[in-house]
Amino acid sequence: MTRTLILPRAIMAMDARSAVLTGGGIAVEGGVISRVYTAEDLRTVRRDDWQVVDVPDLIAVPGFVQTHVHLCQTLFRGHAEDVELLDWLQGRIFPFEAAHSPSSMYASARIGLAELIRSGTTTIMDMGSVHHEEDVVRAVTESGIRAFLGKALMDVNEMYPPLRESTDAAITSAQRQAEQWHGSANGRIRYAVAPRFILSCTDPLLTEAHAMTRAFPGMLFHTHASENRHELDAVRKRCGMENVEYFDALGILNHVTCLAHCIWLNDHEVDLMAGAQAKVLHCPSSNLKLGSGIAAIPRYMQRGITVSLGADGAPCNNTLDMFQEMRLAALIQKPVHGPTAMRALDVLRLATMGGAAALGIAHEVGSIEAGKKADLLLLDLARYWNAPQTLEADAIAGNIVHTGSPENVAAVMVDGAWLYRDGMHRTLDLPRAVEAARTELASLLTRIRTT
Amino acid sequence: MTRTLILPRAIMAMDARSAVLTGGGIAVEGGVISRVYTAEDLRTVRRDDWQVVDVPDLIAVPGFVQTHVHLCQTLFRGHAEDVELLDWLQGRIFPFEAAHSPSSMYASARIGLAELIRSGTTTIMDMGSVHHEEDVVRAVTESGIRAFLGKALMDVNEMYPPLRESTDAAITSAQRQAEQWHGSANGRIRYAVAPRFILSCTDPLLTEAHAMTRAFPGMLFHTHASENRHELDAVRKRCGMENVEYFDALGILNHVTCLAHCIWLNDHEVDLMAGAQAKVLHCPSSNLKLGSGIAAIPRYMQRGITVSLGADGAPCNNTLDMFQEMRLAALIQKPVHGPTAMRALDVLRLATMGGAAALGIAHEVGSIEAGKKADLLLLDLARYWNAPQTLEADAIAGNIVHTGSPENVAAVMVDGAWLYRDGMHRTLDLPRAVEAARTELASLLTRIRTT
Repeated sequence: MTRTLILPRAIMAMDARSAVLTGGGIAVEGGVISRVYTAEDLRTVRRDDWQVVDVPDLIAVPGFVQTHVHLCQTLFRGHAEDVELLDWLQGRIFPFEAAHSPSSMYASARIGLAELIRSGTTTIMDMGSVHHEEDVVRAVTESGIRAFLGKALMDVNEMYPPLRESTDAAITSAQRQAEQWHGSANGRIRYAVAPRFILSCTDPLLTEAHAMTRAFPGMLFHTHASENRHELDAVRKRCGMENVEYFDALGILNHVTCLAHCIWLNDHEVDLMAGAQAKVLHCPSSNLKLGSGIAAIPRYMQRGITVSLGADGAPCNNTLDMFQEMRLAALIQKPVHGPTAMRALDVLRLATMGGAAALGIAHEVGSIEAGKKADLLLLDLARYWNAPQTLEADAIAGNIVHTGSPENVAAVMVDGAWLYRDGMHRTLDLPRAVEAARTELASLLTRIRTT
Repeated sequence: MTRTLILPRAIMAMDARSAVLTGGGIAVEGGVISRVYTAEDLRTVRRDDWQVVDVPDLIAVPGFVQTHVHLCQTLFRGHAEDVELLDWLQGRIFPFEAAHSPSSMYASARIGLAELIRSGTTTIMDMGSVHHEEDVVRAVTESGIRAFLGKALMDVNEMYPPLRESTDAAITSAQRQAEQWHGSANGRIRYAVAPRFILSCTDPLLTEAHAMTRAFPGMLFHTHASENRHELDAVRKRCGMENVEYFDALGILNHVTCLAHCIWLNDHEVDLMAGAQAKVLHCPSSNLKLGSGIAAIPRYMQRGITVSLGADGAPCNNTLDMFQEMRLAALIQKPVHGPTAMRALDVLRLATMGGAAALGIAHEVGSIEAGKKADLLLLDLARYWNAPQTLEADAIAGNIVHTGSPENVAAVMVDGAWLYRDGMHRTLDLPRAVEAARTELASLLTRIRTT
């Protein structure tokens, strides 16, 4: 068993006290943080017993948790610009997803994972497409990232019928996937059953999908809700109520219900979310770029709703870079809620413990504490475009949120294994992944043009 | 005379036709773009006559023009978080500026220039502090960047009296500075007389400052206006009208009037701006971070008002990175004006020709055309987190605006000279600049604490 002792300049633990430990060390054994040493504790440690990672210029922070991404869409980046959600789905994303082959899906996931890892994301919740989920799982498994994932379920699709399945086929395949992958890759992979959104699902699909979560401890229910005004109109027309009200009416709003976007919640829906301990997956870049709106995150947080962050898919962002999401999550609220709203430390908490809490794994990841999985980043925050370092929690968080970028990421560890160090991916053959993405996109575009 | 022939993969000219030239070349002679060759034209060119820069993987674009920055504040990055404009000025920025020494001012400018250059900015309009403008000029001259600049004028300062000057002292020193520096550094430096904002200026200061622009062809009038609701209240109380209305009433609203922010303009003010051909200097990050608001840029553009972009100062952004400003300028308008508002190509135009037009130098910079100054960037837009390259103007602009970052900047040229290539500054001793910034900040903080 590898025993690694990381000696950074400071440890930004993101624990309940927002502790910053200088001169300490992080002991990693068997993929787990076995102990966090103070500077004083460290004096008695025999270095010979450890593989020592001496990084006196770097700051250790918990890995970022992105709770809403679509790896299957990475290949479509730049191919769906300046359109609104429903047009974006019907005219671009659905036809592109339908044109995926196993190899293009694998390529799409790999190139997305490379970007996620280099920008410090160690856990994702991914929504796949209808087909080829096994190729996403293969890429995720190889990459070493921690993931909740599942195919997209759609038994209604007036916009783009080719992606529709029968209710039975959708549920049966999700069930089979959950049996196969929930808890796989040494527990790094877990299943999140993923009906796409109300408009793509019958009531039986929604309720049966949610019922699956009772059979698999730790499984989540992952869907989109209340993203776009036209979507709201259509939901209202079909259901006679709003998104979250409908989830509640169907009995599928509880602590495993993870809802991406939640931009247009009414007061009653906010009450329902808070009461049910349902989770908000906030995607600021995507919400702006598709013209959807700005979610009232400070209001949700005041109500005690768990909020987390995600980049959504590459075509509606167009990056998968958590630093961009953090910066935007902070900035867009201030004109409405005042400049003291969404302080940097609050935002960094959404990106770490918030994500962990949303995924029901706050006991496993999200902070640097003994007993948790060793999912962490080493950041170089002393680049000349960062703020001068003072080693308090607010200042470190400010630097990460307001001046941080992938250029600050020196190393990324998941489950005690280095996925990325010194600009190099350790689990991905990057040149091959890049070349595959190029050729697979070309083939996919040909398939779209000839259908 | 150096004769350089740049052979990029494509030339994104940002001319009136938004031309993209593949396989062509840019001839640079005596700091000027002497010719832009098509691929066919190039066949007859004898390469031996030229210093050839063969960069078949890079895309040439015009250098970015940032029309509102404060180099004097770079050193204060991270020291003024989560506060509103007037508190930010009174409690943080004014005391910090007052504590500057010549060497701290020089250090602040240098570290800011390093960041601006590495992120592709080739022209700035800078507002200095009240003192030590000569140290800003020294840093700017050495850096090779193109700049409009001038000390901040303040003959009213109830918030922080130490930075107040007499009207006469302010005007006399600005006059002396203009005589000394307007047109210096081979014409790269020009003067912009800079009364800080209405609340820091008497009417005579505002009108005399503006009158100076008539004596110096090409000089600009640079100030802040309509940034914050509390500022608006105070202006209304003193002037009985709004910011732009007051500039108009004083007779100082014309084509050289460059107004940073312009968030809260009423319809009458928009009419006045359009009629006077006054310029909007839009600073999206700063406007969000200080909780000031979101300027209705699409509305201004529809009225034909010249809009340009700037990062403002490091303490209210916290970067000086034009890619962040472009991305935000695009994203923040879409929830209000729809997803097709602020297309990437429109935003890239604000960052190049818009800036040039705002500064009255659209005939000199802002596009890659024969006869213009050789101010340009070579971008590597084929990184794996960028969109796959298709060489059309919209796609290139989308990549720059929505996935671009300083990591894409391979080289920066101003006036035909390389300021930055392959991650290296050519005009700045970066390690020394970084070390000076560190020690000068420490001294400055000591000076603040002991006053």
